[in-house]
Amino acid sequence: MRNFPVAKSRRLRSTPYTDRIEAHGVSSYTVYNHMLLPASFKSLESDYHHLKKFVQVWDVAAERQVQISGKDSAKLVQLMTCRDLSMSKVGKCYYAPIIDDDGLLVNDPIINKLAEDKWWLSIADSDVIFFAKGLAAGNKFDVQISEPNVNILAVQGPLADDLMSKLFGDEIRQLKFFNFNYYEFKGHKYFIARSGWSKQGGFEVYVDDDLAGQNLYDSLFEAGKEFDVKPGCPNLIERIEGALLSYGNDFDNRDNPFEANFNKYISLDTDVNYLGKAKLKIINEEGISRKLRGVKIDHNKIDMYCEKTLFDDNKNIVGYVRSAAYSPTFKKVVGIAMINKPYWNMKDQFRIEIDEKIHLGTVCDLPFV
Amino acid sequence: MRNFPVAKSRRLRSTPYTDRIEAHGVSSYTVYNHMLLPASFKSLESDYHHLKKFVQVWDVAAERQVQISGKDSAKLVQLMTCRDLSMSKVGKCYYAPIIDDDGLLVNDPIINKLAEDKWWLSIADSDVIFFAKGLAAGNKFDVQISEPNVNILAVQGPLADDLMSKLFGDEIRQLKFFNFNYYEFKGHKYFIARSGWSKQGGFEVYVDDDLAGQNLYDSLFEAGKEFDVKPGCPNLIERIEGALLSYGNDFDNRDNPFEANFNKYISLDTDVNYLGKAKLKIINEEGISRKLRGVKIDHNKIDMYCEKTLFDDNKNIVGYVRSAAYSPTFKKVVGIAMINKPYWNMKDQFRIEIDEKIHLGTVCDLPFV
Repeated sequence: MRNFPVAKSRRLRSTPYTDRIEAHGVSSYTVYNHMLLPASFKSLESDYHHLKKFVQVWDVAAERQVQISGKDSAKLVQLMTCRDLSMSKVGKCYYAPIIDDDGLLVNDPIINKLAEDKWWLSIADSDVIFFAKGLAAGNKFDVQISEPNVNILAVQGPLADDLMSKLFGDEIRQLKFFNFNYYEFKGHKYFIARSGWSKQGGFEVYVDDDLAGQNLYDSLFEAGKEFDVKPGCPNLIERIEGALLSYGNDFDNRDNPFEANFNKYISLDTDVNYLGKAKLKIINEEGISRKLRGVKIDHNKIDMYCEKTLFDDNKNIVGYVRSAAYSPTFKKVVGIAMINKPYWNMKDQFRIEIDEKIHLGTVCDLPFV
Repeated sequence: MRNFPVAKSRRLRSTPYTDRIEAHGVSSYTVYNHMLLPASFKSLESDYHHLKKFVQVWDVAAERQVQISGKDSAKLVQLMTCRDLSMSKVGKCYYAPIIDDDGLLVNDPIINKLAEDKWWLSIADSDVIFFAKGLAAGNKFDVQISEPNVNILAVQGPLADDLMSKLFGDEIRQLKFFNFNYYEFKGHKYFIARSGWSKQGGFEVYVDDDLAGQNLYDSLFEAGKEFDVKPGCPNLIERIEGALLSYGNDFDNRDNPFEANFNKYISLDTDVNYLGKAKLKIINEEGISRKLRGVKIDHNKIDMYCEKTLFDDNKNIVGYVRSAAYSPTFKKVVGIAMINKPYWNMKDQFRIEIDEKIHLGTVCDLPFV
């Protein structure tokens, strides 16, 4: 795949950390929520091996927050997601698919409950803020909706606790998965969650002050020398192996949450009120004809810029690969694919064309084991 | 400014023309509506000179359509824009700011009226589809909302009529500005508007069939040899000189339509019903404290990746440049800036830091003359 430079502009927003990651050797960008998101540093594979062994600091400011507050905020947030939030608690994070009136996916944010009447939807790559504003205006809800100046730094990898406790004290080791709390460093209080877009463990620091964020960035690298800390970013190989789905890559507004395997986040039998509930009940009764599955391909390289078709021996369509990368662990290309129902447990190999040659592969479970 | 490759993925959608523009030498991309949009070919300046003299074919598939149809479609479309559409006609295109309930800008699409109950909002870079879906659900409107597979090819430049009439016949010369009609070529009917994101004249072909689009692309280059046709894209220099605003660059969801000089598209005295009308009336009475103006800077180079501050001699803030480029015509950097009211007609020069040196400039009218 040839390289094409990204043409920078104000529209593709920089972050408070952009100067630092460029000095640290970022080697490619993607664009996410109208913002620059680093996609690689040394190389995908080198970043991958380091992430699985040490600790990295990530500029994931592109994970923007949609802040919803006010009297009707809980009602609006519940209306947007098929996950039952009626028992939700302040200080906790909820992975929650957002769906529209047709039962189709709009986003898959982590919803942070800051107060009974204040929420942050930490979003994937679509403008959830306008969905929320449309719904609020249409329903005449008493809410305030904004995108606060919050720029997340993630600290990810098996040594994340060791690094973070050097700055924030040992109490941060007690923070449970998908919980958040406030921790002080050099006079600034940071909102920190145990979460992140890798399966290697770690934290996300929701920084609400640019200077405090830059200071934290520098301090993490200073304190992290003993742990071989490096700059990093959500890693394509690692996130596919761990089946961390990506809106726009693995699923989008033409897919429903059953097709994306979100079943455990779909509440059909409670009396919570959300958009598309009637539609989801119908889909649930009728069943789905395709869903996301893993694929392994006997090859050492793949470039993805649109979905690739999988065929069986009789040239019937098995499904479509949507994300894929070579995995040094499995010594194969691993991918996430929308697979047609007859092939969900396919025993035979499928065929896929890569660089004008046919390669063979198999359908498997997600995450990869 | 250093170059960073864009990391391609399915999420940054390719277009039916991507293979062709890459073969034709695209040299940088931006991302627009989650899609690759070419940003330069030979160079910004070379593309600029050619565009102003000859004719270019542009892959502007990233100008996505939000299709709104059904019984309440006119009501929903009007609700979204402060422009009075009550007298709108089928076959015409309407530049129309979309605003939210707070009177802030969401997008500035061209609205194409295909039928009394069918509209295409040809959008700038934000997810208007989710704003529309939110409003429709909240208001229980009887509408269908979708993003059709429409991928625009623009033909822009002073020789656009000559080229297009070779393919579509002389009748296309009669098509008036911001009107559209259907024209046949090799058995396919193409929706063609006289419009485009340059001030050099031309057409936008709303292609609803990938193969027909690729055939048209190839035929335009074949027929265009005698006009020195070249591949191109919205040109930063040309669009700034012509004051064609860009959502996300020059204005965004923190600006109101008065600040963006959209006064002639704001209907306050009619009885049309749209979001934010009460808010706009208040702003109109109170007056605004800043608005978009032109700036000329005595320098030959500028790299923009966030807004840059302008100061007066006493270090007071004059405003912020949001888009800028060196203009070979004016022999200066030209830019679009949000200027504070006391400086709208500033006679003195302002100061701006570019590459760690101070340069001088002046505030001027838009478009540049």
